Amino acid sequence: MTASQQKSALHGFLAPNSIAIVGASADPTKRGYKAIVGLQEGGFAGEIYPINPKASEILGLKAYPSLSDLPKGADLALMCTPASSIPGLLRECGRVGVKGAVILASGFGETGAAGAKLEAEVLAAAQEANVRVVGPNTSGMFNLHQKVDLLALQGVKPGDIGIISQSGNMLLALALEAQAHGNIGFSTYVGPGNQTDIGFADYLRYLGEEANTRVATFYVEGFKDGRQFLDTAREVALTKPVVVYKSGSTEAGQKAAASHTGSLAGSYAMTADLLRQAGVNVVEQSDEILPVAEGLALMQQAAGKRVVILSDGGGQATIASDRLSEAGMELAELSDATRAALGEILFAQASLVNPVDVAGSTDANPELFIQCLEILAADPNVDMVFLVGMFGGYALRFAKELTEAELRAADGMADVAGRMGKPLVVFSLYTPAKPEPLLRMRAAGLPVTDSIEHGVQVLKALAERGGYIARRQGEEQARAISVDADMQACFTTARKEKRDLFEFEAKQLLRTYGVDVPKELILRSADEIDQAAEFGDTPLAMKVVSKDILHKSDAGGVKLNLVGADALRAAREAILASCKVYKADAEIEGVLVTPMARKGTEVIIGTSRDPIFGPVLMFGLGGIFVEILKDVAFRAVPLSRDDARSMVEQIKARKILEGARGEPPVDKEALVALLLNISAIVEAHPEIAELDLNPVIAYNDGYAVVDARVIVDQGE
Amino acid sequence: MTASQQKSALHGFLAPNSIAIVGASADPTKRGYKAIVGLQEGGFAGEIYPINPKASEILGLKAYPSLSDLPKGADLALMCTPASSIPGLLRECGRVGVKGAVILASGFGETGAAGAKLEAEVLAAAQEANVRVVGPNTSGMFNLHQKVDLLALQGVKPGDIGIISQSGNMLLALALEAQAHGNIGFSTYVGPGNQTDIGFADYLRYLGEEANTRVATFYVEGFKDGRQFLDTAREVALTKPVVVYKSGSTEAGQKAAASHTGSLAGSYAMTADLLRQAGVNVVEQSDEILPVAEGLALMQQAAGKRVVILSDGGGQATIASDRLSEAGMELAELSDATRAALGEILFAQASLVNPVDVAGSTDANPELFIQCLEILAADPNVDMVFLVGMFGGYALRFAKELTEAELRAADGMADVAGRMGKPLVVFSLYTPAKPEPLLRMRAAGLPVTDSIEHGVQVLKALAERGGYIARRQGEEQARAISVDADMQACFTTARKEKRDLFEFEAKQLLRTYGVDVPKELILRSADEIDQAAEFGDTPLAMKVVSKDILHKSDAGGVKLNLVGADALRAAREAILASCKVYKADAEIEGVLVTPMARKGTEVIIGTSRDPIFGPVLMFGLGGIFVEILKDVAFRAVPLSRDDARSMVEQIKARKILEGARGEPPVDKEALVALLLNISAIVEAHPEIAELDLNPVIAYNDGYAVVDARVIVDQGE
Repeated sequence: MTASQQKSALHGFLAPNSIAIVGASADPTKRGYKAIVGLQEGGFAGEIYPINPKASEILGLKAYPSLSDLPKGADLALMCTPASSIPGLLRECGRVGVKGAVILASGFGETGAAGAKLEAEVLAAAQEANVRVVGPNTSGMFNLHQKVDLLALQGVKPGDIGIISQSGNMLLALALEAQAHGNIGFSTYVGPGNQTDIGFADYLRYLGEEANTRVATFYVEGFKDGRQFLDTAREVALTKPVVVYKSGSTEAGQKAAASHTGSLAGSYAMTADLLRQAGVNVVEQSDEILPVAEGLALMQQAAGKRVVILSDGGGQATIASDRLSEAGMELAELSDATRAALGEILFAQASLVNPVDVAGSTDANPELFIQCLEILAADPNVDMVFLVGMFGGYALRFAKELTEAELRAADGMADVAGRMGKPLVVFSLYTPAKPEPLLRMRAAGLPVTDSIEHGVQVLKALAERGGYIARRQGEEQARAISVDADMQACFTTARKEKRDLFEFEAKQLLRTYGVDVPKELILRSADEIDQAAEFGDTPLAMKVVSKDILHKSDAGGVKLNLVGADALRAAREAILASCKVYKADAEIEGVLVTPMARKGTEVIIGTSRDPIFGPVLMFGLGGIFVEILKDVAFRAVPLSRDDARSMVEQIKARKILEGARGEPPVDKEALVALLLNISAIVEAHPEIAELDLNPVIAYNDGYAVVDARVIVDQGE
Repeated sequence: MTASQQKSALHGFLAPNSIAIVGASADPTKRGYKAIVGLQEGGFAGEIYPINPKASEILGLKAYPSLSDLPKGADLALMCTPASSIPGLLRECGRVGVKGAVILASGFGETGAAGAKLEAEVLAAAQEANVRVVGPNTSGMFNLHQKVDLLALQGVKPGDIGIISQSGNMLLALALEAQAHGNIGFSTYVGPGNQTDIGFADYLRYLGEEANTRVATFYVEGFKDGRQFLDTAREVALTKPVVVYKSGSTEAGQKAAASHTGSLAGSYAMTADLLRQAGVNVVEQSDEILPVAEGLALMQQAAGKRVVILSDGGGQATIASDRLSEAGMELAELSDATRAALGEILFAQASLVNPVDVAGSTDANPELFIQCLEILAADPNVDMVFLVGMFGGYALRFAKELTEAELRAADGMADVAGRMGKPLVVFSLYTPAKPEPLLRMRAAGLPVTDSIEHGVQVLKALAERGGYIARRQGEEQARAISVDADMQACFTTARKEKRDLFEFEAKQLLRTYGVDVPKELILRSADEIDQAAEFGDTPLAMKVVSKDILHKSDAGGVKLNLVGADALRAAREAILASCKVYKADAEIEGVLVTPMARKGTEVIIGTSRDPIFGPVLMFGLGGIFVEILKDVAFRAVPLSRDDARSMVEQIKARKILEGARGEPPVDKEALVALLLNISAIVEAHPEIAELDLNPVIAYNDGYAVVDARVIVDQGE
């Protein structure tokens, strides 16, 4: 059974038919009062059970002294009581068959050691009682289609955006923004709080299955279940857009998040890369969350990133061109047929190349836009249409008499958009005035954005999701490899000796699994130097082999450009002497000799096991590109061939790989094959904590692995 | 008299007391009708003169057959007539004393050669008649404090934002956005159209002087008078903020702008650098124009970029931290006294480091914010305060009973902000709901933004403007140098010979003006090789000297690492032979020998004369940094010492200069002195079309100019 077929256990209580309010209150300032009022005013059709040992009735409802007194349990319990009461209450929940509990109290892990102990008790009690826990330290939840709103928000519409937010204020901000917009609604909200039991991945699976949700949206300060989230997103994103805003893109933000939710942020660049790899639409600005979620909910995806701008003059077409290019989108090149067809219906001064500018043609006849749209949508070079300009405001700006024609134009464009199977996104400078034509377009399911910038982010998100779905079709995974017995033994020995692999072992590991590593010899004594004769006159490099010397250059353990037995002998003596000075008690296995690598382009490949996201592979150009410009790409292991290719394409310095400054281009496919191979090796050998190939010299006919390092996971 | 003391000639007609409408009409769809209605409905108190040969009365006003029939002329004429009528009408304007004309017609330079000829006629007629021209091809103008609105917009408030927009739709978009916001108003708007007579620089001077304008805002597709704009901005920005959104940040946008206004965009990165150097606040996103202009109008400037975030919990503080860091702002480090004072009034769980999180302390007592603000504003480490969170929505969210306290808090904070002399910028998640406390804060002059991102852009703009003003105080300009007679003669010779400077001449130019250039010898014959003995055993480089060979390496004209007379002799022979093959008729002056430069960090310095902005200097690291990463900084010549310093600090690869990867840091002050020197040389010698120092090797004890090239401006 795949993840997407499994039915989430969360449905039972996130769409509850009966709710117990533990700590129900008659005090209007208390959550135990507000939640009940919220349910009553929201029109919740199920049972509400106030739990309060001192009251017989609250807000017109029969109150029960305890959960145990409930006639037939409840789907969900909202806990408004202090932290210390929670473990006992959860056990009680278990006894009466409550499926899930929403725990508002704070005072757990986020406050220190004592709180962490209490939180562990909460988890143990929940597992023992078979009760799932939202929170603790949550702002609550709502399911507006079920008319359940434990936050007692007012005026938030039911709709198709599901949202999980690690900040209650962020949910509130989005709700208020949606209210002001007028047309955006939500399905389910949950504040995951400390994620003691249920984590982001569980909520994602739930939203993926939840029928009223057309986009799963997340505000995340820190994942606990990163790898699970990636695995779940990979599946959910095939059927439903997943949007994540991840805070902590800077050190200052990470510090703030740590003090807010105790979250460990990890590397933002890595997190964003891994999320995108898993099909997630990563949003980088907080004011883009809602427009992007809305746009994805309405339009779901686009077949490609070629956009045509349809405008009625003015600077907006220019601005849209700039923003689309900056976002990595393409301005569609219109076919001759398209331009001819437009030319027939538009004024002579109209621009028939992209951006298409009707240049006054629609001023007196807005319905012309319908034909324009039809022509543009028919062009095979066009994936999406971005309407920018004054449309929606013609009656306001030009003449009242245009009102009906403009409404027909709105209806007509919505109709064409519905038939054409290509997204239409609308920016109008009249959006703030909310004129009727724009309201109709939105009601017909078209995203109407309030800035060009937001419109472009919607278009980009649609193209990214479409790209993900396309990539997953006929996807080629890194081939799985069967573990080699000798290498297994090598790791066993290294672990026994509590050391990492020697360089020659690391290179042997690579060779064993098909990585192309230049031949080298290990010379364990001066007598063996004659063996190097097999390299002929090629200049050689010599490096010390010692488990006790990590930084070989620093120790004077590397000599380059050696030709002939005498030079090798002298170099070996020098290395041994120098290493003795560096570390007197270093155990030295010998020296490694290998031909000097030809000049080429230095790249590095590294893998590590991230505590949150598991095995991760990094690729970048060497030296300053990694150390100063941080120009690297990350992917979760295992990689697909597309993942590997996209890493090579992602780095800003990719032009260097393509042969800038008169150098020949490097063999990208060889690098892609190498990345896939490394991914497979890391999968096959969980003993590898870190694997570093630094540098690999890339050529136009392959590559040379010049140095390899394997850090062995010593277990516990 | 400096620019700022001159009174702009535009006041006379951009704040007119009498307006002639040429082509006045009784047809409600015509501009010649709408403009009159706009003036009447707007309450314009001056005279309106409809000009129409066929009507005696329009909209209740006496109509005149022609401008010549006006009793006493008019300050301004709005021309609603076709392009061909304009030259004649302008001459008529001159005869009756009309000061300025706003020309709506298109059909000039933007349409081709015939239009360009007509446009030249327009300019000639205007100059002859002493009438200033707005446009042609303009959307019009307004001056709302004068109750003049030739666009007949409705509902746009008078206010303090002056705006010049090369797109009428952009003005309309900003006006609609301002209307939706409710509190933003405009002073003067002008569409510069083709800038035939009046250009952006003139409008900037006017706005700088115009009393109702507190910020001068520009939407620019292309400057014609770039250098003048920079010079004017340098002065205006000292007394009033100048905001520019420049379109064409990408090739796609530049193409779109060219087809929209016929504007040549030039390099966006260069334009943005030059504008910032001149004190302009450059805005990069179109939806940031209005919030940044408003924020600057209200707060004008900040003393520095150290911001403290004051929040009432939630993810917003985290997001604000991320955005501030990304924008290059600093999170202020609060003093111990500040933290202690906050600790005394806030709950124990409050965060007393930046971001300050009151963590519930204000939920029942919003007035506590006043004290918080007072404490934070008193901290000498704080330049600005960013209030983020729920404030403004307490009464809505928590309890109606808080209404009065929250209003007192709003008034109190506005009061403190007014006194403290440090900007306070507000983001509330309740901004979309427009609650009374936020309206009051805005009415009291505080920027209340609708997203964290926009708030951060406001803070950044305030810090940038404050930084500019501070830099201008006690500014040190590049010293002017007196022209050397020998060098003057050298240029004269080069011009006579229609060639550029030889490398040795270029280096002599640099040496003459104090640039430290390694000694070199020019050897004109084999006999002179012995002269190189003065360099001793130092390895030398040898390069061909020929006006006919530009790319010396390609011609085989460079030999490196030469030691001893024999090596020099052989190298010379090889170079001469190779160059003969490369270009048989090349005139060869000889070869240049110079010691090989030590290894160091390659930088490049280049100057050129931009057709729009005049002499410009570029600085960057060499090789891939320029060619692939485009990591360079531009400044207009002459540079101040701060300009030169900021160039070195601006490039992304600055860490390499600071000594990454174990290298010693380079001598930045030597580079700064070199940049200033180059600026002075380019100023002193207008004969220099381009000067390239590529590369300069930067060391921790100076630099070496390895190659220098001077392209000579050959005049016409």
